[in-house]
Formats: sequence, C-alpha cells, structure tokens
Amino acid sequence: MRAAVFHGPRSIAVEERPDPVLKAPTDAVVRVVLGSVCGSDLWYYRGQSPHTEGPIGHEFIGVVEEIGTEVAGIGVGDLVVAPFTYNDGICVHCRAGWTAQCVHGGSFGNRGIDGGQGEAVRVPFAGSTLVRVPGSGHTDQVMRSLTTLSDVMCTGHHAAVSGGVRPGSTVAVVGDGAVGLCAVIAARRLGAARIIALSRNPARQALARAFGATDIVAERGEAADEAVLELTEGVGVDSALECVGTGQSMATAFAIARPGSVVGAVGAPHGVEVPIESVIFRNIGLRGGVAPVRRYLPELLEDVLEGRIDPGRVFDFEVDLEHVLEGYAAMDERRAIKSLVKVGAV
Amino acid sequence: MRAAVFHGPRSIAVEERPDPVLKAPTDAVVRVVLGSVCGSDLWYYRGQSPHTEGPIGHEFIGVVEEIGTEVAGIGVGDLVVAPFTYNDGICVHCRAGWTAQCVHGGSFGNRGIDGGQGEAVRVPFAGSTLVRVPGSGHTDQVMRSLTTLSDVMCTGHHAAVSGGVRPGSTVAVVGDGAVGLCAVIAARRLGAARIIALSRNPARQALARAFGATDIVAERGEAADEAVLELTEGVGVDSALECVGTGQSMATAFAIARPGSVVGAVGAPHGVEVPIESVIFRNIGLRGGVAPVRRYLPELLEDVLEGRIDPGRVFDFEVDLEHVLEGYAAMDERRAIKSLVKVGAV
Repeated sequence: MRAAVFHGPRSIAVEERPDPVLKAPTDAVVRVVLGSVCGSDLWYYRGQSPHTEGPIGHEFIGVVEEIGTEVAGIGVGDLVVAPFTYNDGICVHCRAGWTAQCVHGGSFGNRGIDGGQGEAVRVPFAGSTLVRVPGSGHTDQVMRSLTTLSDVMCTGHHAAVSGGVRPGSTVAVVGDGAVGLCAVIAARRLGAARIIALSRNPARQALARAFGATDIVAERGEAADEAVLELTEGVGVDSALECVGTGQSMATAFAIARPGSVVGAVGAPHGVEVPIESVIFRNIGLRGGVAPVRRYLPELLEDVLEGRIDPGRVFDFEVDLEHVLEGYAAMDERRAIKSLVKVGAV
Repeated sequence: MRAAVFHGPRSIAVEERPDPVLKAPTDAVVRVVLGSVCGSDLWYYRGQSPHTEGPIGHEFIGVVEEIGTEVAGIGVGDLVVAPFTYNDGICVHCRAGWTAQCVHGGSFGNRGIDGGQGEAVRVPFAGSTLVRVPGSGHTDQVMRSLTTLSDVMCTGHHAAVSGGVRPGSTVAVVGDGAVGLCAVIAARRLGAARIIALSRNPARQALARAFGATDIVAERGEAADEAVLELTEGVGVDSALECVGTGQSMATAFAIARPGSVVGAVGAPHGVEVPIESVIFRNIGLRGGVAPVRRYLPELLEDVLEGRIDPGRVFDFEVDLEHVLEGYAAMDERRAIKSLVKVGAV
C-alpha cells in the first residue's frame, strides 16, 4: 500500500509499505477513505517535537476490510470513525472513561503503528476502538464532519467539558485553529449564551461566527486580556478554553478566566508555564489534556448525522494522499485551517 | 488593647494598639476569645514571604462587642467564628460562592487590618462575614474545633472538595500539618473509603489515623510515589490532596494521582511548578487555592457542634497572647502541629 512516512522535520514521503494484516484476534484492517492533517502534526513537521520515523496521521475514517475472530460490534464493509487513540475498553482507565489512558493503548501514526495518512491501517482492539457509522451514501460534507470526530471535534468538546461549559455560560476560546473552532461548536452545543473567539484572521473569525461565536477579540497578549475583561464587565469568563498550547495562550486563558472557574486546556504544551499563583490566589483550576475521543464519539456522531453540527467546515484545503506534504505546508504557512487528505472511495 | 505585631522575620512583639472602633455601619468589633497560628504564618515569620508590618493572625473566634447600624444576623454578645477573609456577600464573586475573592474583601492580620492574635478586631462586612455559633457553655474541646473553622478545617475541606472526593473514593493526603490532618477529616466526612496519609511523624500519623486515615506512607519523594502506587495496584488515587505548597509536595501529588483525577491543592505555593505534561498527557487536573471559608462554615459548624468531627485535636501546643511568639517557634521547629492562642474569656 501507499502511505505517508515521516523521516525528519519537513521530510515526509509517500512510499510503498507492507499491506497491514491482522496480528491479533482483536485487530481489524481498515481501508482509509479520508485522513487529515492535525495541528499537532505540525509540531514534529517543524521539528519542535520528537516523532518516531515511520507512518503518520492519527485522524481517519474508513471501511472495515477484515476483522479478527474476537472483534464484536463492527463488521466487514462498515464505515467507521477511528479515535486517534486505540483502547482495549476493559482496563481500569477505559472503564473510568479515560480511553486515551488505556493501559494497553497507543495512538495511530506513531511508534510504528499505521497512520491515517495511508491507504490502510491495522487497528488494535478494533471492537472497543472503532465506532460504526450507521446509514450509507453520506454526503461529502457529512464525510468531512465524520473525519473531524477522529480528533479535533472531540478535542474541542473535551476543552468545553473540562472547562465546565453549561447552559448560559460565558465562554472564551483561545486559539482559532481547527480545535479552537470546534471548541466554539462544542460550547454552543452545551448551551453557552456568549462565546468570545480570540482570532486575528478574518476567514477564521467568520467561521467562528458561523459556528456560534457571539464576539470576536482580535487583540493579542495583554490587549486581548483587557478586551475580554471589558466585554465581561471586569469579571472574566465562566470558561476559558485553551486550544493552542503555548505559554502565551495559557497566560491569556488564566488572565481572562473568572475566579472559581476552570481553564479547559487541550493544546499540546510547548513552553507552557501554569501560573500557580492564579490557581491558588484566584481559585482558577485547570483540566483537559488528550481527549477521551472514544467516550465522546457516539453523542457527537449522532449530532453530525442529524445535521446539528457541521465541524467539517474546518477543512479549507484538500489534497490526495500523494500530495499530503502540501497539506502540511498549507497549514504550516497558515494558508489553511486544516487539510483533508482524500485517500480512497467508500 | 494588646495585640501581636509583625516587625520583620522572627520579630513579633505583643504591643499596645488602639482599641478598634466601628468605621462603617457594616462593621462589628469582636473581642477575641481564641486565636491560633497558621502554617501559612510561618512563611513570613521565616522571611520566605513578604508581609506588611502590623497586626497579624487570621484565625479567631470571639464575642461580638459592638455592631454598626447596618449589621444584620448577629448581635452583641454572640459567639462568632470569623473566616480568615472578610467578604461583602453581594459582589459577583460572593454570589458565585467564591467568598475569598470578594471584590471588596481582604484578610485579617494583614495590610493594617486587625489580626486574630490580638484582643479585639474590627470586622468589615460583619453581617456577611461572621458566623454565629448557637448555644452556650461550649466545652474547651468544642471551642478549639470552632477555632479551626476560621481556616484550617475549611481549607482541608476545600482540598477535598476541589479534588472531587466522593463516597467510596481512594484519597491520598500530601502533608501532615494541620491542613493535611483536617483534609483527612474532610475526606472521611465526604465518604472516602480509603485515605492514605503521607507522614513521617509518629504523633501526626496517630492523629491522621484517629481522623480516619486507613494507610500511612512514611516515605518521601519517589519512594512515596512508589508506595502509594503499590497500595493502589499501580492505578494511583482518585483524589490527591496537596496540603503543603512546595515543589516536592506538588510533584508527589501529581505522581500519585490517577489519570482523569483532579489534584486538590491548597498549600500556599513556594517554588511550585505544575507538571503541565501530566495535566495534558495524563489528564490530571488541578483545583483548589484559598478556601471560600464563609461558604463552607455553616455545614462544618453543624458537624462540630453535633460532635461528628473534632478538628480541634490539631492543637497540641498553647500559649497566651503575651507568649504568642513561642507558638510560632514551636511550629517552626516542628515541635507542634498547631498553636492555640488563648486571648480572652467567653
């Protein structure tokens, strides 16, 4: 099969790789239909995070091609969404709902595990990892939205859940990447009355508004803090959602969070320092991290299929598998919010 | 009146001070019966934190001597508990329950506000700050327990609430000072099934057991982490309560917290670095900070008066006001868990 392989910063090649085969009775082989490039892929693309040399891409949907004898709940020919982490569903952390912490888990497109930027993937613990998409003949737009359920839509939702968004909340979303934009959708979906999106980019501002943002703050740094505080009569927001992972974005999130609130943080951290003084003296908490995608998937899948949310609109660039590198470059240069990788037919 | 005054590290004198008088119609003057020395007082005593030169002591109970025309809910002659912070009860943060964040608030024994280590205190916003103790003729032991409601018992409770302790939880308490010991009481009170106290001191271990600790871990550092993980079959605890405020204690709390849990942290931070990698990659949250004592006081007061909790046992040293410095020294040298300051009669 053909698959994207990481060789080092800015060195990604689409190469021939062995076709995946079942290795355990709990495995499935999935033929990838759509993959995508994640903002977190840019960290290793840019050389800012280490990454194993090998297959890449942790977001994909596809069709089940083969299943092991112990795989239940999905069958050959099913359209499935893969969470970016696989999980056995029965360990102590899976049972508690923290599926990304599975004792026997791991993530796609890393450490030799097949990636979603390739024609096929061996999925460990397929029965407890993959989620079957009911129906058939889904539109292109629905297929795009389904692809976001692999990671970014569930991660934005995790930011909102971690930040305690509830009906009537005033929310600020720090970060206008795909995760930040999905966090706007999630906040709206959870009933937020006011959603302040921090963004300087007109196209992203427009998408944030389409997703439910009621206010846009284009300032950065202390000017952004002041703008949000002014919008909230000096109180701060009920939930600040940190969707970037830099020191600046975390500082902003804490500065605009109201006392007693919890910052919902999902950005992969690079140079982040948590302001412990704010945690202690302003009673501002911090929760989040890698999303338990498998836990959130069923409810968000239903909303996508019912047309209540349309996160696929974050894809504003598309490539085929052979040109995946262009998808990285477009995001790296901020010409694209998120790149879709068209791999195969349903 | 006589009152303890801070002049600099290890320089505390009991001096004549002007008798407090009402300055606002919402003030009361309280004659102090019992005060105490808090672990957090040691930071400035040792010169590790700044502190205004002036009156000190933020924990006290006393009898109302005079009230302003706008004070409701308490009357002259009432025995009252003072939270360590005063609050107007009507600002946006008070209404949300975060009374220590009151827009017009402050704390006793700092920045010129009278302290509880003195014969009398002017209490701002007395009607929304002080809590009346029903009944009369309370025993010495009850009076001691009431004194802990000013701060340490409510702060230990805040650690447990912030850490999400619930019926059946496995909890670890990092820190065997008065707050840590009160956190054991709080965890037990909230229904924890297993409470692991980290302590090397035999007297404190015994008190922790008396308060409900089921296990003691005497190791420190990585050996402590390993011991707690072994006790929890490698999973970690449902709630790690950080009751010290050092880099070491925070590191321990995060190391023994199970994925998906929240560290409840109430120690005043000195050299603390929050391990953001654990927040993000292990899904461990952080909440806590200064306790909203006024919010918690009524329910804990009832438990003290009904004899269901006995936090006054943390006092293992006592002095009169003139000898308050000995109370500091005993705690500084770890000869005492907590020092009671006997100021006046009921």
